[in-house]
Amino acid sequence: MTSDLTATNRSRPRRRAERGRFDRAEGNAIIDEAYVGHVGFVIGGLPHVLPMTFGRIDDVLYLHGAVGNAMLRASTDAEVCVTITLLDGLVLARSAFHHSMNYRCVVLFGTATRVDDPVEKHRAFDAIVEHTLRGRSAMARPSNDTEFRTTLVLALPIREGSVKIRADGASDEPEDVDLPVWAGVLPLRLEAGTPVQDPEQMATGPRGLPAPVFDRDPR
Amino acid sequence: MTSDLTATNRSRPRRRAERGRFDRAEGNAIIDEAYVGHVGFVIGGLPHVLPMTFGRIDDVLYLHGAVGNAMLRASTDAEVCVTITLLDGLVLARSAFHHSMNYRCVVLFGTATRVDDPVEKHRAFDAIVEHTLRGRSAMARPSNDTEFRTTLVLALPIREGSVKIRADGASDEPEDVDLPVWAGVLPLRLEAGTPVQDPEQMATGPRGLPAPVFDRDPR
Repeated sequence: MTSDLTATNRSRPRRRAERGRFDRAEGNAIIDEAYVGHVGFVIGGLPHVLPMTFGRIDDVLYLHGAVGNAMLRASTDAEVCVTITLLDGLVLARSAFHHSMNYRCVVLFGTATRVDDPVEKHRAFDAIVEHTLRGRSAMARPSNDTEFRTTLVLALPIREGSVKIRADGASDEPEDVDLPVWAGVLPLRLEAGTPVQDPEQMATGPRGLPAPVFDRDPR
Repeated sequence: MTSDLTATNRSRPRRRAERGRFDRAEGNAIIDEAYVGHVGFVIGGLPHVLPMTFGRIDDVLYLHGAVGNAMLRASTDAEVCVTITLLDGLVLARSAFHHSMNYRCVVLFGTATRVDDPVEKHRAFDAIVEHTLRGRSAMARPSNDTEFRTTLVLALPIREGSVKIRADGASDEPEDVDLPVWAGVLPLRLEAGTPVQDPEQMATGPRGLPAPVFDRDPR
């Protein structure tokens, strides 16, 4: 659990290697903060990418969906690439060429396998709900047999991959530094708004979301 | 420019078809609001997904990077899938099973071709910078010959694809509506923080970012 991600030919960033890192703790922090990953898979030799939510337990990433989900079926026992990106800011340079973005990104490669063990599958269900909102799996009505049976869970080992981070200001050419063009970073971050309760329960139902409502603040 | 995206077997969402739409204006609105797309491509039969910024001119999406960029080289004259996702909220249901997310997503399929025409390439450069911040391409120092030559630009027609949107409250089972579990939506949105100016120019350089600093507010 403390070993670094494995760098292979496909996972090692080829350009700007200084942005490529292989630290597992950094990778897990990105995975745990992001809500959506982009899952790449191949059907008939052609690339497909779809957004998915996920959960993590130790060194395993769990994906889930309906058993009929074409993407999950195509990804079962198949090679996938799951890329999880957090956007942290716009980098505004004096030159058009050096405009960039600050971001944290983890790219995972591996074979996604179906989770058949009911104990692991239940734990994966909880992890996915917990990933959305900590503490939520203990509050919500647990999945019943039909829901459990009609949901496909895939496990991807967090083993082969890379972490890439840009967290820096504008990197202009020395000859550009005196240009009268504002340079710097416009920070961006995902923020939660006011919770909107289901109107059906506003009259009689529970009031207010239990804290923490939004648990993605830096830990 | 006003025709809808083409729905094909690979682009038509198979499940929850009610969430799949094919409206070009909706697709362009998502493309124009998002900062990052996830580009899927195949190398040696294996899926790869990397985040990229982009620009749009009419019905063409432009990607760019260094000429040596392995992803761009693998994507040149090859089939790619570009998926652009905006996360709008967490959907908290009374049951674990019905937890979901509100999002807007466009999935594009097609062949990415290298832009060789210098006029189109210059326009693509500007579009990519403008996509980051409107008005910025007229302020920043334009690319010089070396920067122009060492940058690879790919064009993907916005033609085959789909738009998928979830913008709704919790959809619980009828038998769950009286459960004492808070249900509703926690809205999420990307917000800009205070611009951080390059310290090298804070003493003598331009003050303040020209408005609009953050142009992703609903138009």
